[in-house]
Amino acid sequence: MSPFTGSTEATERWRHLRVTRQDGVATVTLDRPDKLNALTFGAYADLRDLLAELSRERSVRALVLGGEGRGFCSGGDVDEIIGATLAMDTAQLLDFNRMTGQVVRALRECPFPVIAAVHGVAAGAGAVLALAADFRIADPTARFAFLFTRVGLSGGDMGAAYLLPRVVGLGHATRLLMLGEPVRAPEAERIGLLSELTEEGKAHVRAAELAAHLAAGPALAYAQTKALLTSELDMPLAASVELDASTQALLMTGQDYAEFHAAFTGKRPPEWKGR
Amino acid sequence: MSPFTGSTEATERWRHLRVTRQDGVATVTLDRPDKLNALTFGAYADLRDLLAELSRERSVRALVLGGEGRGFCSGGDVDEIIGATLAMDTAQLLDFNRMTGQVVRALRECPFPVIAAVHGVAAGAGAVLALAADFRIADPTARFAFLFTRVGLSGGDMGAAYLLPRVVGLGHATRLLMLGEPVRAPEAERIGLLSELTEEGKAHVRAAELAAHLAAGPALAYAQTKALLTSELDMPLAASVELDASTQALLMTGQDYAEFHAAFTGKRPPEWKGR
Amino acid sequence: MSPFTGSTEATERWRHLRVTRQDGVATVTLDRPDKLNALTFGAYADLRDLLAELSRERSVRALVLGGEGRGFCSGGDVDEIIGATLAMDTAQLLDFNRMTGQVVRALRECPFPVIAAVHGVAAGAGAVLALAADFRIADPTARFAFLFTRVGLSGGDMGAAYLLPRVVGLGHATRLLMLGEPVRAPEAERIGLLSELTEEGKAHVRAAELAAHLAAGPALAYAQTKALLTSELDMPLAASVELDASTQALLMTGQDYAEFHAAFTGKRPPEWKGR
Repeated sequence: MSPFTGSTEATERWRHLRVTRQDGVATVTLDRPDKLNALTFGAYADLRDLLAELSRERSVRALVLGGEGRGFCSGGDVDEIIGATLAMDTAQLLDFNRMTGQVVRALRECPFPVIAAVHGVAAGAGAVLALAADFRIADPTARFAFLFTRVGLSGGDMGAAYLLPRVVGLGHATRLLMLGEPVRAPEAERIGLLSELTEEGKAHVRAAELAAHLAAGPALAYAQTKALLTSELDMPLAASVELDASTQALLMTGQDYAEFHAAFTGKRPPEWKGR
Repeated sequence: MSPFTGSTEATERWRHLRVTRQDGVATVTLDRPDKLNALTFGAYADLRDLLAELSRERSVRALVLGGEGRGFCSGGDVDEIIGATLAMDTAQLLDFNRMTGQVVRALRECPFPVIAAVHGVAAGAGAVLALAADFRIADPTARFAFLFTRVGLSGGDMGAAYLLPRVVGLGHATRLLMLGEPVRAPEAERIGLLSELTEEGKAHVRAAELAAHLAAGPALAYAQTKALLTSELDMPLAASVELDASTQALLMTGQDYAEFHAAFTGKRPPEWKGR
Repeated sequence: MSPFTGSTEATERWRHLRVTRQDGVATVTLDRPDKLNALTFGAYADLRDLLAELSRERSVRALVLGGEGRGFCSGGDVDEIIGATLAMDTAQLLDFNRMTGQVVRALRECPFPVIAAVHGVAAGAGAVLALAADFRIADPTARFAFLFTRVGLSGGDMGAAYLLPRVVGLGHATRLLMLGEPVRAPEAERIGLLSELTEEGKAHVRAAELAAHLAAGPALAYAQTKALLTSELDMPLAASVELDASTQALLMTGQDYAEFHAAFTGKRPPEWKGR
């Protein structure tokens, strides 16, 4: 637990998500299988609040995001979100769309790697949640669809027009966001959208293995790697090199760097402290 | 026709391009087949002015750019452009090079998707025109060559050093712009330069089909998707997420979003208004 | 030799690198084959100083960077660098990490193309040196590993978190920098990390051929192409198009552009002056 915690209490029960924790790994499951895990206002709010809580308490060193049942996430619920937003006024519409964007920022800015375990459909906001993760581990049933234009909205939802060109290049990103057509696992792998393609039914197992590996490793080094990747997309080269120098100088004073050297010279595996 | 038109009259005849319009689709054809559609000062100026006119009058919802005859475009005409620029003074040289850059900015900033239909050669400025389009639909005869260094100039012509790394990555972009070697259709597809590879002779047909699909669809949603893709290449994540939230809140007040919901609940296909 | 040289004298002997020059090509060889060319403080300093010297004297028009013996470069020496940095204070740690970053900036900002000839291992700082080059020519034995997290440090070392996403996309870059796993030649080629894959043992030969081709060509055009590629990664579209217009207008007053036109109209090959 971080010393930088104040009066807030940890949330006991996340009503719109299933959250478990073990050995430094948080597993977050979208759990409305009868609706293909369609997102509700509550699910977005819980993702935003959970990521903020985990980011400040510092006991989690890797997070797996997956979906229960036949797929990952079918996106915003047509009734509960599209229907409801049609009745909203300007301020409410802006509040809602800012909240969804806050989830994406939280995924990119939280101090631990996020692994999306994708099987079946990852559509609309579901596709963007996977896109905002650090790793996308998918099985051959995975199908991404950035289908916002198909409901009359902009393909640039929740940072997708920022993130997708930086992952797959502007040409593919334009095609995917403009047309909203499904991208199946082989194409997703070919264009660089997947971190790893597993055998059918194995995305969750491999995501859990990777999370365990990361949680047992030099967690501060991973956290700073993520922070630099996220920051330097927005920075010029000279400033990036300066940020890298500061970061590396700092980590060279840390326990894990000394531990690596001691382990290497002692011909034993390092015992990472994550700090 | 937009209410925001002033005193300018629509150009009756584009002397350096062939322009047709039907059902919201403008088809622009480079039409000097005896010169492989080599660009002249007049052709650049017409592209710049046509895109400005179409952008303000708002009757066009998709644009196809293609070439007559054996290829797409062989780039700037050696006699009419290279020869002429050798006789120019500093101010004229800057004027000319700014004009070509304005064509690329107009292609990226116009409020409708642009589809390049590429067969045969797309060289020099012709390759950059295709690069600046939203979609590149090519057949197996297509051959891109960013051959500026081969005439003693910088490979970064007309925004190519900005756009190409964002489409195919810095490594491929460096190789293509530095060496000016031809990129044939299979390589272009492999590195992400193509949106779609068609059968031989079918690039124009598929481009027309895609343009018709886009023109019949939620055109404002497409226009904003393009605007966000273009803008967010230059923006940090936090600002991009904020722009997305504003844009989406705005489109949620539009006719097409309501139409989608009505159609979905009524179990009928949506009738898009494009606004 | 540039007229813009002052009092500094050319370094007679680079003690930590092997440097040869011929016909405008500098060949820089990491030459500690018994240590897989592990980098020392002296090697970093020499790379920084050599690139600065070559950048201001202007007699070099292409540079090849390679490694002697079984591989390209195994990165920072475990004893001479990791061991030594553990004894350093804050200011020294920052100085060291700034120096390594200066090498990467020098590789990106020097006014001639840099070709990394990679065989065998390119690990840690060795992988970043290759990444910062303009061309990566590798044979099938090449193996890149950004293994910084494996010693407890940030994967964003020496600009890697800036450069790698711009070369291979954010998804692959995250995986490579976070996990530090080796990337073998076929995967490196598939994800866009290689400029060219040669037959076994031929990376150095092809690198030398390419360097000779570049040195015999329109060197100022190549230098400006590199400068624009480097600069425009950090610039918005409108400013990039303006920079391109200025650059092209300038080069249109140069000797090589006139030479191209004279050669073309005279039906002979151009004799490039490189200015």
